[in-house]
Amino acid sequence: MGATQTKSYQAINLAEKLEMIDEQWSPRVVAELNDYQFKVVRIEGDFIWHNHPETDEAFIVLDGELRIDFRDGAVRLGPGEMFVVPKGVEHKPFAAGEVKLLLIEPRGILNTGHAGGERTAQNDVWI
Amino acid sequence: MGATQTKSYQAINLAEKLEMIDEQWSPRVVAELNDYQFKVVRIEGDFIWHNHPETDEAFIVLDGELRIDFRDGAVRLGPGEMFVVPKGVEHKPFAAGEVKLLLIEPRGILNTGHAGGERTAQNDVWI
Repeated sequence: MGATQTKSYQAINLAEKLEMIDEQWSPRVVAELNDYQFKVVRIEGDFIWHNHPETDEAFIVLDGELRIDFRDGAVRLGPGEMFVVPKGVEHKPFAAGEVKLLLIEPRGILNTGHAGGERTAQNDVWI
Repeated sequence: MGATQTKSYQAINLAEKLEMIDEQWSPRVVAELNDYQFKVVRIEGDFIWHNHPETDEAFIVLDGELRIDFRDGAVRLGPGEMFVVPKGVEHKPFAAGEVKLLLIEPRGILNTGHAGGERTAQNDVWI
């Protein structure tokens, strides 16, 4: 009847998305920015040494405490803190307790880089 | 004396960076991911209608409540929520009270797109 249609856009609630993931170490895509993806993931324990020769990788901690080990040191991140691992730099995430992360990286990047192994998660799974 | 050198890497604390900004509407770069930038900004009130014809733009709310108006609707974001405005889509951020944001977009993107005007902030300023 001529009324203006008002579209309801939906915010992406990161904590709610994280609640929907049923297992650790399984990144889930929540949004895309051009050819980049935002992924949420819950991790706990030790990951493997790997690197991403083609890209930097951004980590934002939403909950918990993350340590990222490098061959020559480490960085510790709490909630509201971020770090960008430069491309090609070997790193190994570690979380003593569960940590909830937001990762930003180009579409198509595997969590283990080119290292492979059982920790390699299925890529490009949305939630 | 042959001891292993351990480098101390520094986490980027987003709240601390925001505290260092002395004025609203002035995005400050805190990190780069390839050719993308992470910017923190404090805003309050009404912005102008604009769009970014060349890129999507990601908004993550760290504190406060943000509304992004579109020509056909709006999205409301609280802390821990995000939204990606698709490239070319006209939008106008609005915050009734101060809101603290993390923006992710390619290097070189002006806050007002190509709309210009007094709200146009100096680009590529790090904090």
